[in-house]
Amino acid sequence: MSLNIAVLTTGDELINGEMSDTNTARIALLLGARGYAIRESRAIGDDEADIEAALSDMSARREVVISTGGLGPTDDDLTARVAARTFGRRLVLNDEALAQIRRFFAEKNKEMHPRNEKQALLPQKAVILPNRLGTAPGFHLRHGQCDLYFLPGVPREMVVMLEEQVLPRLHERSGGCSPLQERILKVFGLSEPKVEERFKQMPLPQGVQLGFGVEFPFVHVKLRAGGDNADALLDRAELHARRQLQPFVFAIGQESLAGNVARMLTDAGLTLALAESCTGGMVAQMLTDIPGASQFLNRGAVTYANAAKRDWLQVPQEILDTEGAVSKACAQAMAQGIRRAAGTDLGLAVTGIAGPDGGTPDKPVGTVFLALSTPGEERVQGYRFSGDREQIRRISACMALEWLRRYLSNDD
Amino acid sequence: MSLNIAVLTTGDELINGEMSDTNTARIALLLGARGYAIRESRAIGDDEADIEAALSDMSARREVVISTGGLGPTDDDLTARVAARTFGRRLVLNDEALAQIRRFFAEKNKEMHPRNEKQALLPQKAVILPNRLGTAPGFHLRHGQCDLYFLPGVPREMVVMLEEQVLPRLHERSGGCSPLQERILKVFGLSEPKVEERFKQMPLPQGVQLGFGVEFPFVHVKLRAGGDNADALLDRAELHARRQLQPFVFAIGQESLAGNVARMLTDAGLTLALAESCTGGMVAQMLTDIPGASQFLNRGAVTYANAAKRDWLQVPQEILDTEGAVSKACAQAMAQGIRRAAGTDLGLAVTGIAGPDGGTPDKPVGTVFLALSTPGEERVQGYRFSGDREQIRRISACMALEWLRRYLSNDD
Repeated sequence: MSLNIAVLTTGDELINGEMSDTNTARIALLLGARGYAIRESRAIGDDEADIEAALSDMSARREVVISTGGLGPTDDDLTARVAARTFGRRLVLNDEALAQIRRFFAEKNKEMHPRNEKQALLPQKAVILPNRLGTAPGFHLRHGQCDLYFLPGVPREMVVMLEEQVLPRLHERSGGCSPLQERILKVFGLSEPKVEERFKQMPLPQGVQLGFGVEFPFVHVKLRAGGDNADALLDRAELHARRQLQPFVFAIGQESLAGNVARMLTDAGLTLALAESCTGGMVAQMLTDIPGASQFLNRGAVTYANAAKRDWLQVPQEILDTEGAVSKACAQAMAQGIRRAAGTDLGLAVTGIAGPDGGTPDKPVGTVFLALSTPGEERVQGYRFSGDREQIRRISACMALEWLRRYLSNDD
Repeated sequence: MSLNIAVLTTGDELINGEMSDTNTARIALLLGARGYAIRESRAIGDDEADIEAALSDMSARREVVISTGGLGPTDDDLTARVAARTFGRRLVLNDEALAQIRRFFAEKNKEMHPRNEKQALLPQKAVILPNRLGTAPGFHLRHGQCDLYFLPGVPREMVVMLEEQVLPRLHERSGGCSPLQERILKVFGLSEPKVEERFKQMPLPQGVQLGFGVEFPFVHVKLRAGGDNADALLDRAELHARRQLQPFVFAIGQESLAGNVARMLTDAGLTLALAESCTGGMVAQMLTDIPGASQFLNRGAVTYANAAKRDWLQVPQEILDTEGAVSKACAQAMAQGIRRAAGTDLGLAVTGIAGPDGGTPDKPVGTVFLALSTPGEERVQGYRFSGDREQIRRISACMALEWLRRYLSNDD
């Protein structure tokens, strides 16, 4: 049974632009890993009328409401008071909560501020959800068909309480059935409509739901299944999907493109050097974002000036004069040059025109050449990407990583 | 008059934990800068019943609803269809919208996919909000007392449409009162509590509101004022604030650290070369993000391997042997070496330990050395930054740029 779950986050800072609400995504991830999906999330300010309207509406429409925030000691922490009023209960000093708060301060050898007592004022018959990491106890209320869980807004406290106290209760309520599972295939090089089209031609196994999302420049394909044989179903669906989308699937689930390339290089014991022009260090930056990149990355050259291409990469002046710095010949010379200079197994080069200026009729903005030099062969190819400067740079860098991935996985 | 505004974001990815909803914060920031506050934000999945319930409830309770997402060409883009049903309108092919979509593809010399026609199916009598940057036209509906604005979920498209098309309409609806004006001072090198403390010692001119925000690793100080002399008030407040925060203010409003450094280098006619170790190309990437970076950036070296530091930067083997690659001496040699190799006016170097591995008792994770070589002098300094790998890399790269900014502005 799939529960109808909603999240309510409160706090002025969430809606005045000071910060994004990240608790919703945290909760969704934790629940999603157990196969629960959130149906709705609301963020509202520290306003009594708004909180009451949200609690009232959501408790009527959902089976589970997870609320975060508003449990602190200050005057703008309103959640417990408003919850009591919304559900027609008195606000009472909860002895168990007070004891927990006192214990928290005692363990830290800190004096308890009188205002922290306010955090023990909870709706009558609330069930305490202890907080190991902070002063604000959480609580549980049942109203009609709805279970409401009130947690603090501090992410690390909220996460632990959700895992230790809310998730077991959800599992019990959903009858202990195995919930929905999800598998995400990450795709690069096909637009979302083209990905969808391929799935229209190839129906998935019965019982697998299909969804799509875009995280520029990637498309995410989401496969979901429930029941006892969900794993097997998803395995079959993944195989199906991979076949249909080959060679465009670069990662599964939490994996990333740069992370997979880094792992494959490390596993293969191969070394790499980079020569970047229009991406200006973006490929190097993406790879060095991965811990342990020094295992395989020897060096990277950001060669904006032609002199740098000559000095460091031995690109012949003749190529720069006749073909130009943005050309097949230059890309190839850069890849070979960086490989030779660094003495690495692989040399990868990117040169192009990211714009907004610098385009010509022959080579408009978006013209990009990639080259890969390996012990066995030399590859070079031209592209015409579209988008603004930032997008062209990002697509180019991802395509460069994708070249490595395909080379390393023999996917091409 | 203060409008009662709510935001609705749709998309499975917002509630399944794949990504945080950042559009709410973007909208809140943009509205906040004009003195509008949002009262509530809801995120729901691509589910017809949920979208309908939210539109129905929110349009009854709010004066303005800004909806983002669900305007794409695929089957899970439901917003227009559900909006039509919710407000009892027919879904019709909107000629103006279709013409805009066709024009968008024509300008890019791309073929229009037949399914993009779906994006022109809008509720009857919807007023088109043109989209300069993407295929999905937005639209406006009035229902009862509520103005509903439907925008695409892609942040860059959404932001431009909000600024150019929604804000003027909000201004009109709120009676054309002069809204609040905002000026943002961007601060690097002081924590938020420390920034706040400095303002406690220095009251702002009467009529200026003060707000703070954190955008890692920066702190934003927001000055707001209304009325006819808002500009003059903000000028005075800015002067006050700058004096108190010197030399930590690196940018105002839409300016960025890299953008300001790029402009100052270009204006001064100075050239630069970079040598990066732990930042792995991040400094180069931030600078080359700015159009026209080839004016001043000659080259960058990402020298992970010691061999690269020797070959390209002439770092003496003796320094690597005795002091190590993460040392004052190595940083200084890198800065001098890259400046000499490139023949530029300035040479900037970063070397450090970003972690999670590689720390020692002497040089724990977060140990970073910066060096700047200039015609007049050599500077080098060690830091101990805290945070995870990503944070340490980002702070280091920003500090390197900040060195350039202070050198170029004689701010130090």
